[in-house]
Amino acid sequence: MSVYDKLKSLGISLPPLTPPVAAFVPYTNTGNLVFLSGTIARKDGKPWVGKLGREIDTAEGKEAARAIAIDLMATLHHATGGNLDRVSQLVKLLVLVNSDEAFTEQHLVANGASELLKEVFGDKGPHARSAVGMAQLPFGSCVEIEMVAELA
Amino acid sequence: MSVYDKLKSLGISLPPLTPPVAAFVPYTNTGNLVFLSGTIARKDGKPWVGKLGREIDTAEGKEAARAIAIDLMATLHHATGGNLDRVSQLVKLLVLVNSDEAFTEQHLVANGASELLKEVFGDKGPHARSAVGMAQLPFGSCVEIEMVAELA
Amino acid sequence: MSVYDKLKSLGISLPPLTPPVAAFVPYTNTGNLVFLSGTIARKDGKPWVGKLGREIDTAEGKEAARAIAIDLMATLHHATGGNLDRVSQLVKLLVLVNSDEAFTEQHLVANGASELLKEVFGDKGPHARSAVGMAQLPFGSCVEIEMVAELA
Repeated sequence: MSVYDKLKSLGISLPPLTPPVAAFVPYTNTGNLVFLSGTIARKDGKPWVGKLGREIDTAEGKEAARAIAIDLMATLHHATGGNLDRVSQLVKLLVLVNSDEAFTEQHLVANGASELLKEVFGDKGPHARSAVGMAQLPFGSCVEIEMVAELA
Repeated sequence: MSVYDKLKSLGISLPPLTPPVAAFVPYTNTGNLVFLSGTIARKDGKPWVGKLGREIDTAEGKEAARAIAIDLMATLHHATGGNLDRVSQLVKLLVLVNSDEAFTEQHLVANGASELLKEVFGDKGPHARSAVGMAQLPFGSCVEIEMVAELA
Repeated sequence: MSVYDKLKSLGISLPPLTPPVAAFVPYTNTGNLVFLSGTIARKDGKPWVGKLGREIDTAEGKEAARAIAIDLMATLHHATGGNLDRVSQLVKLLVLVNSDEAFTEQHLVANGASELLKEVFGDKGPHARSAVGMAQLPFGSCVEIEMVAELA
């Protein structure tokens, strides 16, 4: 089953990639690795704002992380020249969770991304990961994730 | 002197690797690099809890970072197929310190890991490094470290 | 136009590289990648201290990020054996901003580094990037940046 069939079976459609109007880019390729820029959570096209442990609970944070995973796949779709089946392995996620200083479930929030990626990419989906609590994030967003992937 | 002889001379035995029951893995190999997941400090098998600048002082944080370095070596032992002497270079550490907003000695905490790794790996031990202060970490742990290593 | 001509035209001279007296190093080379250690902002040789959203505003934070970019280029100059024109691509920046928990303009601070790097390296300058808010940083510095670059 191709990655695109899997996405379709999950009812997920990838959004178009909107490159930032900025001095940086959504991803770089080096050798067979792709480094993806930190991507903030969005809801209805706007930053998904709030701090875990305050306005956002773990379940909602997990949903936000899942939404970022979809945006990261959209970026990766572009980085692979439109062929996600070229991804041979997800290498690494850094999951940055906007956290009240008492919130300690960053790993559960991160699972929202990790579980979807495993479901979509199958045995190419597991990845090394760090999940950590931030003082704040751009635009006040609740989660930001960066990724490294390997292409065949 | 092999890495294992060096560990023995320091009285350090590596714990077995317990893979997380999760959608992520303790490490991934890509080319000749190994990316190790963020690993939290543990004491007596339980998360080593507390914030630097409050419950945990710099000396204890340094001990916690040293304990993580041992767990990272256990992961690397597994990643190298049981042969740490295949490590040609430690590439990079990201040391994430659970910090009160007034605590500014993250680099001293990080030395607990860096100094042990240099002692064990000798001229293959020095590495690039970042040390930073987090709002919180999973399970309330005081330090988390991720690593990139290169294999021969 | 070489990178050095570009630096000269901008009135920028690279400082000498002072390796830390520590168990870590300013950079490591692996394959054709260079991993640069997290580098804190300095002003007049001393840590550029303060928290964004309190003592430091976005404009000053941006200046601090620009100053770090100069120090990172000095490190990269050393890592390339004195030939920055060997840099084939900047791969990734991680921009760590010492943030009051209400400060949400980490991306604007990060632009201070990204814009200078793009100006100096031209079409080799764009990079993937994450910008995030930290609870604190070593020595109380306002910004810290780590980088990955690719050499030809």
